[in-house]
Amino acid sequence: MSKEQESISNFLSKLSEIAEKVNEYLDKWLPQNEEEYSANLNEAMRYSVMAGGKRIRPALTVLTAEAFGFKGEAVYRAGCAYELYHSASLIHDDLPCMDDDDLRRGKPTNHKVFGEATAVLAGDCLMLMPYEWFGKLGEYGVSEDKIVKIMKIANEAFTYRGVIGGQMLDLRYENKKIDQETLERIHMGKTAALLRAPILTGAVLADANSEQLKSLKTYSHKIGLLFQIVDDILDIESDAATLGKNTGRDVALGKSTYPALLGLDGAKEYAKKTYNEAILAIEPLGDKMNDLKALALYLLQRKS
Amino acid sequence: MSKEQESISNFLSKLSEIAEKVNEYLDKWLPQNEEEYSANLNEAMRYSVMAGGKRIRPALTVLTAEAFGFKGEAVYRAGCAYELYHSASLIHDDLPCMDDDDLRRGKPTNHKVFGEATAVLAGDCLMLMPYEWFGKLGEYGVSEDKIVKIMKIANEAFTYRGVIGGQMLDLRYENKKIDQETLERIHMGKTAALLRAPILTGAVLADANSEQLKSLKTYSHKIGLLFQIVDDILDIESDAATLGKNTGRDVALGKSTYPALLGLDGAKEYAKKTYNEAILAIEPLGDKMNDLKALALYLLQRKS
Repeated sequence: MSKEQESISNFLSKLSEIAEKVNEYLDKWLPQNEEEYSANLNEAMRYSVMAGGKRIRPALTVLTAEAFGFKGEAVYRAGCAYELYHSASLIHDDLPCMDDDDLRRGKPTNHKVFGEATAVLAGDCLMLMPYEWFGKLGEYGVSEDKIVKIMKIANEAFTYRGVIGGQMLDLRYENKKIDQETLERIHMGKTAALLRAPILTGAVLADANSEQLKSLKTYSHKIGLLFQIVDDILDIESDAATLGKNTGRDVALGKSTYPALLGLDGAKEYAKKTYNEAILAIEPLGDKMNDLKALALYLLQRKS
Repeated sequence: MSKEQESISNFLSKLSEIAEKVNEYLDKWLPQNEEEYSANLNEAMRYSVMAGGKRIRPALTVLTAEAFGFKGEAVYRAGCAYELYHSASLIHDDLPCMDDDDLRRGKPTNHKVFGEATAVLAGDCLMLMPYEWFGKLGEYGVSEDKIVKIMKIANEAFTYRGVIGGQMLDLRYENKKIDQETLERIHMGKTAALLRAPILTGAVLADANSEQLKSLKTYSHKIGLLFQIVDDILDIESDAATLGKNTGRDVALGKSTYPALLGLDGAKEYAKKTYNEAILAIEPLGDKMNDLKALALYLLQRKS
């Protein structure tokens, strides 16, 4: 195994260890089905949040905080909050009036199981609950000052400047030819914003300084783009068996992609360039960034 | 004019003065249509938020803060945040999969104008933006400690213990006969929670103590119920011209109402009792509660 492959493999086993802990905490912290008067709601929220996934967003909070020497339950509480928002966003995305998807991670989508009205409400509730969980950080001794900082970081990612803004822009340009700048603004909103926020949250919890926050911000944006560029390439190059979903979907849907804009070789070059920029951004922070570097390498080299 | 009528009339003119300022601030603080990359989103959000209404929730923040001697733009910033959430909740309520309403305040509902996908996203964004606005309270010198307190008060009202929990319970018992306890739990969630939060927010901004907060909490719950009891009575007694909407709707829809549970006279007695409890709750706080008392009296005596 090359040194590169080894660092990716170490990173992936660390990631799955964290994901296991995230799953335990989510199960413990989500409202119980029998709690209060919102049993159906709680059941619908649990259904989607506990459906699995790599738990990459909470893992980013954990990895970043630990890189700066900060560990403990508070890091998981803050990181898991982003998983709630992520689940909420997927529930609303899958609605008939949005992407109209029946399956998500091999299971029927939320509205297929609980009905559309409950799916709207479960999504609403999961979008708002991160702020409840941020509020609970005080119980772990996190200062109000930091809680407000984290709340602002989350806002920036959740609303019109972040995910929702990106989705809106995506809707607006559906089936229209767009330039690279617009494509990147969509990805910055829909993808990069929700990688940036958990990374910066981990850094704030661990008292990173403003210079370090700036480096991590650039890194987040670059890996968000990198993820999307590689996604577009895999949609063309990979076979369905490896990718675990149908290939050629983007072309069939007439979506603007990097290979469409830059050609396949151009897109590959651009992926490499974006990877290099991600690494360069966190280079000044030294060895403690090894996990985040391994993540970038993994995103560049992944085959699925 | 009786003394009672005079206090109501003074209160109503104060309310409309505040509403005018609320409208100015909302117009100023909502993202501009041309801002960033979310033009359609901003247009859809403005459409619903600026559609009017009594602005009772921000007014409650303002009236409460001023009762305790605290004035200024920060009070409006915090109060207006609740109007964003309220608008969001109406946008999602009107969706075809929820109440399927085409008209709201005499205008086509959000999804009728902008399409369902945009209405879902505009609602999502408006639900989350209160936290952006709470975060901005620091710019007016409000301490992080208070901001976190307000954030928690808002959470309690917005999610499964508040509005969304109430809506869920309402959905669950649709077309089913329910007892008074269940009916009150629905109203506590759907209505009272979103009166309580702006009132407590005004009190926290103005440094009210925990005893005072407790009194205001009880008052909020009572006026929330009072509003609903009187609503149910008006649905039977008022004519459509006075009420500005069709009467007899509740009965036609098979909804559980107070007159159905207690008889018309019983419901009227219960309204009077609930009014008395609201007044009693804030009696110890003295004359500074006069506006809130006038509000309770108005809610009891209103004919529309």
